[in-house]
Amino acid sequence: MINPIRVLQIGLGDIGLAITQILAERESYELVNAADIDPALAGSDLGQLVGLPGDREIPVHGSISEALSNTQADVAVLTTSSGMEDITPQVLELVESGLPVVSTCEELVYPWRANPDLSQRIDNTARERSVAVLSTGVNPGFLMDFLPVVLTRVARRVDAVVVERVQDAGTRREAFQRKVGAGLTVRQFEERVASGGFGHVGLTASIELLAAGLGWQLDEATETIEPVIAEQPQRTEFITVESGQVTGVYQVGKGIKGGKEVITLIFRAVAGEPEPYDRVRIEGSPVLESTFPGGVHGDVATGAITANAIPLVMQSPPGLRTMADLWPGCLGSGG
Amino acid sequence: MINPIRVLQIGLGDIGLAITQILAERESYELVNAADIDPALAGSDLGQLVGLPGDREIPVHGSISEALSNTQADVAVLTTSSGMEDITPQVLELVESGLPVVSTCEELVYPWRANPDLSQRIDNTARERSVAVLSTGVNPGFLMDFLPVVLTRVARRVDAVVVERVQDAGTRREAFQRKVGAGLTVRQFEERVASGGFGHVGLTASIELLAAGLGWQLDEATETIEPVIAEQPQRTEFITVESGQVTGVYQVGKGIKGGKEVITLIFRAVAGEPEPYDRVRIEGSPVLESTFPGGVHGDVATGAITANAIPLVMQSPPGLRTMADLWPGCLGSGG
Repeated sequence: MINPIRVLQIGLGDIGLAITQILAERESYELVNAADIDPALAGSDLGQLVGLPGDREIPVHGSISEALSNTQADVAVLTTSSGMEDITPQVLELVESGLPVVSTCEELVYPWRANPDLSQRIDNTARERSVAVLSTGVNPGFLMDFLPVVLTRVARRVDAVVVERVQDAGTRREAFQRKVGAGLTVRQFEERVASGGFGHVGLTASIELLAAGLGWQLDEATETIEPVIAEQPQRTEFITVESGQVTGVYQVGKGIKGGKEVITLIFRAVAGEPEPYDRVRIEGSPVLESTFPGGVHGDVATGAITANAIPLVMQSPPGLRTMADLWPGCLGSGG
Repeated sequence: MINPIRVLQIGLGDIGLAITQILAERESYELVNAADIDPALAGSDLGQLVGLPGDREIPVHGSISEALSNTQADVAVLTTSSGMEDITPQVLELVESGLPVVSTCEELVYPWRANPDLSQRIDNTARERSVAVLSTGVNPGFLMDFLPVVLTRVARRVDAVVVERVQDAGTRREAFQRKVGAGLTVRQFEERVASGGFGHVGLTASIELLAAGLGWQLDEATETIEPVIAEQPQRTEFITVESGQVTGVYQVGKGIKGGKEVITLIFRAVAGEPEPYDRVRIEGSPVLESTFPGGVHGDVATGAITANAIPLVMQSPPGLRTMADLWPGCLGSGG
C-alpha cells in the first residue's frame, strides 16, 4: 500500500468543500489540515463540517501560516479567490514552505499575459523551492481551453475555435445565481459590473490558455458582459426575478490574431434557460463539433479535475505550470 | 528558422498519402524519402504522386532497407499494416537504424496485452537505440480511447464508458466500403470474417488503451462482428447493394472488470446510414455525454493526429509508448 498523499485544504467555500468530499472518497488521499478566513469556521473540524466518515480530526485554522505550523502535508489545494492580486501572496506562502499548489483561481489558470510580473514571481519562487503550481477547473481549465486543444489534435488545419457554455443558473447554488445577476435591476447589474469581479471570471484566461495550447500569438484578447433581461417572471429556489429585471448574464470573449477573430467564447447563464448545453466547434479541416447536452456540471467537474490534477502537479517539473503544458508537448517537456 | 523535421514515409496507401499531404502543407516538416512494396510505385516520385507543390524529388523505394540506405531522416512514419505480426519486423528495422517511429498500425496502438512478446521486443530495441515508437490514429488512438480518458478528468467517479461510432460508409473511399462488407452476401461476409482482418480493426486496442488510461485492470476484452443486412437496395459511387445483401458492419467491443461490463465500444459502418455520429458517454458522477454530429472524418483525422504526434514522439522518453502515456501522468513522466 502506497502512503496516501497528505492534503492541506486552504479555502472552505463551495468549491473547497466539493474538493474535500472527493478527496475523502479516495484512499490515495488523506486530508490532514484546513484553513479558512471565516472566523466562524476557525477551530471547527472539517470532517464534521462536510460530514466525512471516520472520526479522525481535521482541524480548521484561521490562516495559512497557522495551518502550516500545525501540519506535515505533501500538497496544498488553494480555493480562496478568483483573482491574481489576492491569490499571489497565498501561493507564495505555501510554495515557500515547500508545498506544491493546486488551485482553482480562475486568473491563475493562465496568468502570463494578463499578470506577467506576478506570474514571474510565482514561477521564480516555485523553481527555487522545486515545486510546481497549477490552477485548473472546469472553466477556465478544461471546457473552453484544454478540451478544444485536445480536439484540434485530429484537425488537419485549425482556422478558428468557438465554444459555447449555456447554463440554467436556476438549478445552481444560490451564490452562482447571485454571481450572474439574477434578480438585479439593469442599473444594479451595471454597478456590479463596474465594481469588478462580477459574472463568470476566466474568459481571458481561457483565451490565453487556448492560444498557448495551439501555439497562436494573439494580437489581443477581449471580454464583454451584458445582462439578459427576463421577459417573464422567473422563480428559483433562492431568487425571484420580475419581468424587466436581470435573469442572467451573457459574456463573450474574443481572441484576435492577424486582425481576425480566431477564438470566440460565449458564456450564457440564465435562470430558466430551457436547454442548457456546452458546445466546442473547431473551424478548419475537418470541421469538428462536440456537444454536451445538459452541459458539464460546474462544481462537481471543477472539484474532480482539481483532485485528479494533484498527482500530476506533484510529479511536474517545478515552476508555474498551466494546463497547456500537459498536452501537446507534455512528453519530455523538461521533466 | 528551425530546421524542418525530415520524414521518411513508409507505406503509400490511402492513409500514408493523406499524411504526406498534411506534412507537405507544413513548413516544420520535410518529406525526404518514401517506400512502398507496390512494384508499380518503386522508382516514382512522391511529389508527383500526390501532387505536392515544388519540384524537389522525393524518391519512392521498394523496401525499407533501400529507403534507409538512401536517406538522412529524423523520423519514420509507418503506415503499412494493421497487425502486430506484419508491423513488428518493420518497426524493428527502422528503430535499429536509429529512427523514432510514428505508426497508424491499429494493433500497435496498445499491443501490450494482446501481443506481450512482440511489444517487449519493440520496447527493448527502442530503449537500446534511445528512440520512441508510438502508434496512433483517430480510431484506435483517439475517439474511443484517448478522448474518453480526457473527459473522465472532470468526473468525480467513473462507473463505465460507452462509445458509439456510427458512420455512413457510402460516402467513404471504396476500400473502406469493401472493408465493411458492403455488397457481399451474408455467406461471403462470414467467410471474410473467418479469414481475419475484416471490418474495423482496433476495438481491442481501444479497450486496452482506455483501461490503461483509467488505471483499470480488466478481466477480459471481447469483440463481436455481425453483418448489417440491406432492407432496400443501396447504391454508392463504387458499390451496388441488393436487398438482403450485406450493407455494412456492426461490431461491439466489451471490457469486463470485476464481472461487470465497464467498457462498451460500438462501431457501425453502413452504406446509406442516414445520420452518422460519434458519441462518448461517461457513466458515473456526473454523467458526461459528448456527441459529434456527422462524426469525425476518419482518414483526415488519422492523418492529422499522426502528423501532430511526430514532435511528441521525437521528444518522448525512449521505448514503446502509447497514447495513454500522454495523459494522465505525462507531466514529469520521465522526460
